[in-house]
Amino acid sequence: MKAYREQTTEELQKLRQSLHERYRAFQSRHLELNMARGKPSDEQLNLSMGMMDVLASNSDLTCEDGTDCRNYGVLDGIAEAKQLIGDMIEVPADNIIIYGNSSLNVMYDTIARAMTHGIMGSTPWCRLPAVKFLCPVPGYDRHFAITEYFGIEMINVPMNEDGPDMDLVERLVAADDAIKGIWCVPKYSNPTGNSYSDEVVRRFARLKPAARDFRIFWDNAYGVHHLYDDDQDELIEILAECKAAGNPDMVYKFASTSKISFPGSGIAAIATSHNNMEDIKKQLAIQTIGHDKVNQLRHVRFFGDINGMKRHMRLHAAILRPKFEAVLHIFEEELGGLGIAEWTRPKGGYFISFDALPGCAKAIVARCKKAGVVLTGAGATYPYGVDPQDRNIRIAPSYPPLEDLKTAAELFCLCVQLVSVDAILSEREA
Amino acid sequence: MKAYREQTTEELQKLRQSLHERYRAFQSRHLELNMARGKPSDEQLNLSMGMMDVLASNSDLTCEDGTDCRNYGVLDGIAEAKQLIGDMIEVPADNIIIYGNSSLNVMYDTIARAMTHGIMGSTPWCRLPAVKFLCPVPGYDRHFAITEYFGIEMINVPMNEDGPDMDLVERLVAADDAIKGIWCVPKYSNPTGNSYSDEVVRRFARLKPAARDFRIFWDNAYGVHHLYDDDQDELIEILAECKAAGNPDMVYKFASTSKISFPGSGIAAIATSHNNMEDIKKQLAIQTIGHDKVNQLRHVRFFGDINGMKRHMRLHAAILRPKFEAVLHIFEEELGGLGIAEWTRPKGGYFISFDALPGCAKAIVARCKKAGVVLTGAGATYPYGVDPQDRNIRIAPSYPPLEDLKTAAELFCLCVQLVSVDAILSEREA
Repeated sequence: MKAYREQTTEELQKLRQSLHERYRAFQSRHLELNMARGKPSDEQLNLSMGMMDVLASNSDLTCEDGTDCRNYGVLDGIAEAKQLIGDMIEVPADNIIIYGNSSLNVMYDTIARAMTHGIMGSTPWCRLPAVKFLCPVPGYDRHFAITEYFGIEMINVPMNEDGPDMDLVERLVAADDAIKGIWCVPKYSNPTGNSYSDEVVRRFARLKPAARDFRIFWDNAYGVHHLYDDDQDELIEILAECKAAGNPDMVYKFASTSKISFPGSGIAAIATSHNNMEDIKKQLAIQTIGHDKVNQLRHVRFFGDINGMKRHMRLHAAILRPKFEAVLHIFEEELGGLGIAEWTRPKGGYFISFDALPGCAKAIVARCKKAGVVLTGAGATYPYGVDPQDRNIRIAPSYPPLEDLKTAAELFCLCVQLVSVDAILSEREA
Repeated sequence: MKAYREQTTEELQKLRQSLHERYRAFQSRHLELNMARGKPSDEQLNLSMGMMDVLASNSDLTCEDGTDCRNYGVLDGIAEAKQLIGDMIEVPADNIIIYGNSSLNVMYDTIARAMTHGIMGSTPWCRLPAVKFLCPVPGYDRHFAITEYFGIEMINVPMNEDGPDMDLVERLVAADDAIKGIWCVPKYSNPTGNSYSDEVVRRFARLKPAARDFRIFWDNAYGVHHLYDDDQDELIEILAECKAAGNPDMVYKFASTSKISFPGSGIAAIATSHNNMEDIKKQLAIQTIGHDKVNQLRHVRFFGDINGMKRHMRLHAAILRPKFEAVLHIFEEELGGLGIAEWTRPKGGYFISFDALPGCAKAIVARCKKAGVVLTGAGATYPYGVDPQDRNIRIAPSYPPLEDLKTAAELFCLCVQLVSVDAILSEREA
């Protein structure tokens, strides 16, 4: 089919009619589908059920160093878990603190601590007239929710194919000591699926922030979440690179096993310099006696080591890959060449980022909803929920069964077509 | 033996010599014993090993309401866990929010939230010139550590046999709107083991604090931790009593299964009014997607219901009771009638509170340490680690095996005798 803008008004009006008929046919099916959140599917969850068997009532729950995982103690995690998570995120075990079940919670606590107690002796952020964060967009809504909750001003930075616009990042952090952080999802980013290039990582490590307490919040959420065996994104490790660049304390790296074992029942961690770790542990020792060591041990015994985890991730990939490919195939079939949309083609992670014509995202999401397909709210990928161009929609293909997903993707494309035709016709009327 | 003060200086000097000999004999045994922390013993931990079997790879991890515990979601806990914990702490399930593995963490987060965001619309505490907490003493060191960490001024309130000095509490909270809270361990208190009387609970519920955002921090740590079947402390339920008294929002009640299942791998909760719950959930939704539901389900399936939990607690009691009784017996034998010490005789909980002669606690703890027995640091039971009279020592009989415990208790009594003789002789010299 010709690109929409190259079609006559008459052709588009005719098209609109046939699209409306197809839409009504979808509505009559009373669908109830969800492409909103990055949740693993039931099939993926089944992959980890063996985890329920690795500890039994006759198991010895003692660590290699003699710690009884069943009792109090061990503030920063058992050694075996540090090793496993360290290998997973390419950081030495002794730069790791193991937390509870959620890396989001670790990020929240990290900001909360900076608010009330500052970072390594800096003024607590709650006592400053202004605190600002850079937010590569589109990005992760739950990151933005944390900074918004604490009244931190968020500044949009465009996310390019190879990472955030580093010219802008460098300029901003050097100029304004109220800028205390930047949210990053460096690998298979949420929602674009793109990964930061070597140059971008190197430039991050060499930032010259005006604020001594500026930190890069490096959310390594999808570090081992590849879709392909033979075509994977590889990143420069940021902690080592910061150290090499003379900025050893500038980064907090976060990770969890949420989309490896069970979301909500995994283990989370922070990796950072020893200076930062000391700073964190002063607070952590007040907050808790220790996190769930039995669950740490359960993870270690289930995966064995990083190779076991990598094998496990291939099983996830085998389930996710056809879903991503099906959605991308339908996008290409239904929207390719129409000049009304762009989208990413990730090699890992949980999302596809979709850009409609400006001003169309909200209308598309609303149309989908009316026909029974729930998407992430338009705007969610921007701070304050405001996408200035109303273009971006996050597509989450992981949860629905493949056939449902195809149906949802078809309806989605239909809605994109409908809303785009309307938009172009309105333009011509105006 | 005669009370020390009734003995002549000569008699005491002679006594001192023989005590020193006994002390040297202890030293030559190179003991390594610990009566410092309220940790369950290995034998107690073994009671919960069945918990490792209740979920297996072929188990259905679906809740009664259809929630898959393995996936994201459910901010405030699964219904079954709310019911179990609700029954445990005598509060309706719909007043409960289930958290992660540690009630200490819940308390910390509660204070942290009040610091940055206030309580139900009040001014964030970090913006106030002063924030104060009342601290019944002796009390729990980790409570005091939280308030100290946030720069909250702590005011000592004497803890009597039936609870805190309520005349003082009533007067202070009514007079000063900087007083925002009070730390309470109402049942089998840490460290006294005493419980609040009905009158004390009623007076708590009827407090007229000057601060609208004053809250009672009711740490129900030992609610079902009885030592005896037929002689148990029963308290008036504080949430219901506050509601009846027209102060429905005045209390946060905390609890966990740390000393029921596994410390560090249990589940924790807050119980409070719906207004407070709404206030909390606004923050919680930013902090996390949800806590560990698999572990919640594991607890529910293991205990079944509150009756299963009560049966389980009888097994704990059967292990703890002889330990408490052995220590109390040795105290009575070694120190009874000497006029140099007082101690509590708890019917539950994890501690015995011991009061030496004024100025003797630190010296006793140091002496014990030199002979290989570690006690909770003297002063730990007071804010800022300062016991104004240097009298109080917390005794934790739970962890050591019975025979070790007896040895430790004997050494402890010997050290009390030694330090007391020295103190009285010094007095006479002066």
